[in-house]
Amino acid sequence: MYLAKINVVLKKSILDPQGQTVLHALENLNYNSIKEVRIGKYIEVKLDVEEKSVAENIVNEISRKLLSNPIMENYYFTLERM
Amino acid sequence: MYLAKINVVLKKSILDPQGQTVLHALENLNYNSIKEVRIGKYIEVKLDVEEKSVAENIVNEISRKLLSNPIMENYYFTLERM
Repeated sequence: MYLAKINVVLKKSILDPQGQTVLHALENLNYNSIKEVRIGKYIEVKLDVEEKSVAENIVNEISRKLLSNPIMENYYFTLERM
Repeated sequence: MYLAKINVVLKKSILDPQGQTVLHALENLNYNSIKEVRIGKYIEVKLDVEEKSVAENIVNEISRKLLSNPIMENYYFTLERM
């Protein structure tokens, strides 16, 4: 059993209006030291497999196919044995 | 300058319908080894401060006030010097 922790982030070249909105909200609350905010997704997946390499392959596949949009987003993940 | 990487996750006792939906989608794609999916937020924040303890305090404050809902969600973060 493995726990995959997957972060999906917008590519650097893609504008992030949600992050901009949060940045402005923080500026209005006088957090002037905050210079940039970018918002992504975080996904935890439990996999019932024995081999780490199998888990890695599955997480790569589902990240590309379902969890991220490869045109606009990058993903990275860690795997923990449970 | 610090980069804070903040993960916001639903508390264990809170149902996650979005994660359930993704789980069912994965089951329909025959990913039968996947047993649980939980979906949260991932936020990257750049802070223009010198001291790590100051950055920590700010990230804790904005996470509680603006980025998470403390009733339903937990957060944790890492800080990297840039």
